[in-house]
Amino acid sequence: MTQEPVTPCESDDSDPVDPTRRATLAALEEILFHPFPVLDQGFVRVIDYMGNDQAVVQAARVSYGKGTRQTREDQGLIRYLMRHRHTTPFEMCEIKFHIKLPVFVARQWIRHRTASVNEYSARYSVMDDAFYVPDPDLMASQSQTNRQGRGEVLSRARAEAVANMIREDARQSYALYTTLLGESGSGEPGLARELARTVLPVNIYTQWYWKTDLHNLMHFLSLRADNHAQAEIRAYADVMMDVMARWVPLTFQAFQDYRVHARSFSGPALQVLHQILAGEVVCQEESGLTPREWRELMMDLGRDPEEGQHVPAV
Amino acid sequence: MTQEPVTPCESDDSDPVDPTRRATLAALEEILFHPFPVLDQGFVRVIDYMGNDQAVVQAARVSYGKGTRQTREDQGLIRYLMRHRHTTPFEMCEIKFHIKLPVFVARQWIRHRTASVNEYSARYSVMDDAFYVPDPDLMASQSQTNRQGRGEVLSRARAEAVANMIREDARQSYALYTTLLGESGSGEPGLARELARTVLPVNIYTQWYWKTDLHNLMHFLSLRADNHAQAEIRAYADVMMDVMARWVPLTFQAFQDYRVHARSFSGPALQVLHQILAGEVVCQEESGLTPREWRELMMDLGRDPEEGQHVPAV
Amino acid sequence: MTQEPVTPCESDDSDPVDPTRRATLAALEEILFHPFPVLDQGFVRVIDYMGNDQAVVQAARVSYGKGTRQTREDQGLIRYLMRHRHTTPFEMCEIKFHIKLPVFVARQWIRHRTASVNEYSARYSVMDDAFYVPDPDLMASQSQTNRQGRGEVLSRARAEAVANMIREDARQSYALYTTLLGESGSGEPGLARELARTVLPVNIYTQWYWKTDLHNLMHFLSLRADNHAQAEIRAYADVMMDVMARWVPLTFQAFQDYRVHARSFSGPALQVLHQILAGEVVCQEESGLTPREWRELMMDLGRDPEEGQHVPAV
Amino acid sequence: MTQEPVTPCESDDSDPVDPTRRATLAALEEILFHPFPVLDQGFVRVIDYMGNDQAVVQAARVSYGKGTRQTREDQGLIRYLMRHRHTTPFEMCEIKFHIKLPVFVARQWIRHRTASVNEYSARYSVMDDAFYVPDPDLMASQSQTNRQGRGEVLSRARAEAVANMIREDARQSYALYTTLLGESGSGEPGLARELARTVLPVNIYTQWYWKTDLHNLMHFLSLRADNHAQAEIRAYADVMMDVMARWVPLTFQAFQDYRVHARSFSGPALQVLHQILAGEVVCQEESGLTPREWRELMMDLGRDPEEGQHVPAV
Repeated sequence: MTQEPVTPCESDDSDPVDPTRRATLAALEEILFHPFPVLDQGFVRVIDYMGNDQAVVQAARVSYGKGTRQTREDQGLIRYLMRHRHTTPFEMCEIKFHIKLPVFVARQWIRHRTASVNEYSARYSVMDDAFYVPDPDLMASQSQTNRQGRGEVLSRARAEAVANMIREDARQSYALYTTLLGESGSGEPGLARELARTVLPVNIYTQWYWKTDLHNLMHFLSLRADNHAQAEIRAYADVMMDVMARWVPLTFQAFQDYRVHARSFSGPALQVLHQILAGEVVCQEESGLTPREWRELMMDLGRDPEEGQHVPAV
Repeated sequence: MTQEPVTPCESDDSDPVDPTRRATLAALEEILFHPFPVLDQGFVRVIDYMGNDQAVVQAARVSYGKGTRQTREDQGLIRYLMRHRHTTPFEMCEIKFHIKLPVFVARQWIRHRTASVNEYSARYSVMDDAFYVPDPDLMASQSQTNRQGRGEVLSRARAEAVANMIREDARQSYALYTTLLGESGSGEPGLARELARTVLPVNIYTQWYWKTDLHNLMHFLSLRADNHAQAEIRAYADVMMDVMARWVPLTFQAFQDYRVHARSFSGPALQVLHQILAGEVVCQEESGLTPREWRELMMDLGRDPEEGQHVPAV
Repeated sequence: MTQEPVTPCESDDSDPVDPTRRATLAALEEILFHPFPVLDQGFVRVIDYMGNDQAVVQAARVSYGKGTRQTREDQGLIRYLMRHRHTTPFEMCEIKFHIKLPVFVARQWIRHRTASVNEYSARYSVMDDAFYVPDPDLMASQSQTNRQGRGEVLSRARAEAVANMIREDARQSYALYTTLLGESGSGEPGLARELARTVLPVNIYTQWYWKTDLHNLMHFLSLRADNHAQAEIRAYADVMMDVMARWVPLTFQAFQDYRVHARSFSGPALQVLHQILAGEVVCQEESGLTPREWRELMMDLGRDPEEGQHVPAV
Repeated sequence: MTQEPVTPCESDDSDPVDPTRRATLAALEEILFHPFPVLDQGFVRVIDYMGNDQAVVQAARVSYGKGTRQTREDQGLIRYLMRHRHTTPFEMCEIKFHIKLPVFVARQWIRHRTASVNEYSARYSVMDDAFYVPDPDLMASQSQTNRQGRGEVLSRARAEAVANMIREDARQSYALYTTLLGESGSGEPGLARELARTVLPVNIYTQWYWKTDLHNLMHFLSLRADNHAQAEIRAYADVMMDVMARWVPLTFQAFQDYRVHARSFSGPALQVLHQILAGEVVCQEESGLTPREWRELMMDLGRDPEEGQHVPAV
């Protein structure tokens, strides 16, 4: 059984170029089929796409009919749509990726239901010997303050010891997998692939085709390129963010301004803001905000959260 | 206010041609942006597409991994997928249409939820003076046997009388709409467009961009190109069926064989079939089938439904 | 043909009461099946529901496992979920409505795709003679500043004249409909119902069952109980908002604070806010915001938009 | 850290009973919250439900309006809906399960996108020490004819040897997991939970709440209670099939007849059937069917596939 890492199929290498009357993006054509490395053995590559910024505009103008022709510029319209969460025109663009990723990342990713997926089948085929081992820089202890986050990075020595344990565990699991498959030359019949694979850990790499529209891509990115997301899936989202910037530059900029860098202020938080602007003294205890909300609000306002609690009028 | 029928925007006419490395279909490029007429004033035109038969194969092969490379031909694989309802690879292709259609057709169409839509907004813009009037050949009386179907076609004279009544009603409604909008030169302020449009009948034409994937397109076509569908939406589905044949010819043939021309036999119907094949005499009353099911089964078996009830052994 | 308005079916009146071990809400049971009037002839009534605030908590705690048991109170957890857009636990509650509404409202409503719908079929049955005529208070002219909004309310006299025109148009359309159906006693065969109904205007009332989960209900309400929504659909959303308050009071309060009364500040808007808090003089022209964004920001900050442009340091 | 298997939370044990005016099923109430064992350590239990057979009928009758009142019986209507794939009325019922299942089963399950899920989070909490080890009866070798299926069951001795290897691998993996978490008393800081869990194999048990409507439940069951599905997920589907029979007995019977026990005959297969019924001699080679399709057709017709190839006129 070959154990080379799965590589993009050769058929893509020939790169035939055809004429088309469809919307075409030179900046995206340039990187089409190119595998961008992610984590230690993963990749993201764009396989196909449909539409561009103008397709968003075109769809919006069908809605607005004669009302908008020539009266708004494309960029202004796209920013307007993003700002007012008029999301349907962004569904008119589509993109398809080929992705190699660890199973535990795939498990988080698949929760995004409005996408199409075809994954490598471990019932049908033998899994490759490729396992994710975190880089020492990503090897962190459990956060003490955030139950689902990372705290301090481990010491170099400890990180390497952990990496070795993970690597050794992967080696043993894959050896057992091979044994169960009966590929080691024993006379015994091999266990069904669908059963043998059950011993493989979730850091094994799988791969899939994943296709979604621009609206749902932005939803994915806003959640997965965020610092609440696990670092491993964020590494994929970051690469896809760059792809998005090449694909739909106007939409990308609007997305940055109105979603990625935007902050939502709750009703009670707005009241605190109004009080501050009016020069009133406010403190967390009387604000109706929890300590954590208060801290986040002060940071969003560019203030010291601690000092903020007894802030005098600005 | 101009009342010319909505036409494809001129920007499409210039037809720039760009090189692309994406899957490209000459047969589909040929008709790109071309409006195929449907009903008296409607049209369907393809605006964009992504993928082809090979994209289906490629996605399926990611699932099957090394197992299938070179061992199955594309056509065989596509037929296998269709037969076993492995639907996800068909989601990897996408198509976008621009469609002009009566509102009552749009109301049936929109029930297909797994698609993206941008429709002309009657809140934002003024509706055009375009109403659907059935061709005399489509003008039928209520079916006496099927509560949601058509029976005999009306006499030519009656059909024309009905067409005139529909036309006159449309004329009056549109005149009222114009009056309410205050566009007739009265000094009165016009009623808000979103209110004025409420007097327009559902045979008025609207238009939208409609985008879906190949799997969901087939689902749409299997329901709407079917003779249970209202003739008007079927007219659209028929044109889109031709588009599909150009786009994905292998998938189209498999779709015809395994879906369009296929028949599902229920458990009880299979028992009747077994009895017939065993030379037994079967009749509806003892078959467990309703009279209507019996009739349909006999027709699917190519037999006379009436005679069938007392069919001797074959 | 009977023309009485469609009324809730009698079978619901008998109100059998059964014991259940499911989550049960006294406040919701009280209004179950009760039709709340909306617009002139419409209604909303709750037909069924599943789950409550505790079902949200329970689902969230499966995710958090042992980590949260007994350590957070329900209300705090629900507010945390809402604030951080952890939306899946809210999908665990479901509600089903029976709604009578004009067709043009139904057309806006159906754009929400993540819901289940069964609508009265005008192919199958004869439509009732019930048409929406706006109350004079809702009868407004086209807004001069907002292409899809309403401006000044019409004068009483003009509003009544318009109402009469709409009423007369409905009367004529329904008379034609009846004629086409051949129910007026002519010897002619009636036109198929699916064709006859095409002359009916979109202010005719239809009805449907509409079922969705709590997450998607909130999405619907945040868009449709908003002042950008057409007043007619907002009338329905307002009633459903009250239903939600009865059903899931903790979720409702969190929804008010973090969604309904929240405001999103874009990246550039946050910079303006930081400048204001730092005592700097800012004006729209140099802010990177459009005039409209500037105006909205100033209003969100509780300031006079005009004066705001040259606001001195606070 | 406690390692007891996850059990239904105690709060359910108190079983308060409340009066409700909603549709209530005694047969389902009886088993509410009861965990039905599946595989060696898994379970399925019903947590909540909404609607029953009558809710399907009620929704269909809104569609059909006056046309059907009292004219069809419930059972006939449900069978009609199922036969003609009128699926929307079945969406009006909803059910919620609490399920404990191995991760590799969860990975297959989650591909059904039209459902709501809340899963135990291994980022947030520590996974329990519970791993799936197949029963010797399920321990089969790779099928020689079906790339994604099982062939012969292993010998008892071999099956037990394999079970021991799987068990030992699980033991080692869990020990490593514990070590990485730093729970073994070393002075070292524990690795973040979200990283430590990456060494756990996919036969570890997880659990989730899974909620779907009756239409999508049937879709799930038709694919997963099928013999093409992996035996492990089928074990869950079989239990849920029994639940469905209790919940909606009329729908269940129709589902059995028109879906589970139904067979779809392709266009070419129908032609072969017509030839057989006409007494013609047909063979696979000239039938247009592949050998596999031929074999399946003959089996559906209750004939010997081998002999069938040279079948004389019946």
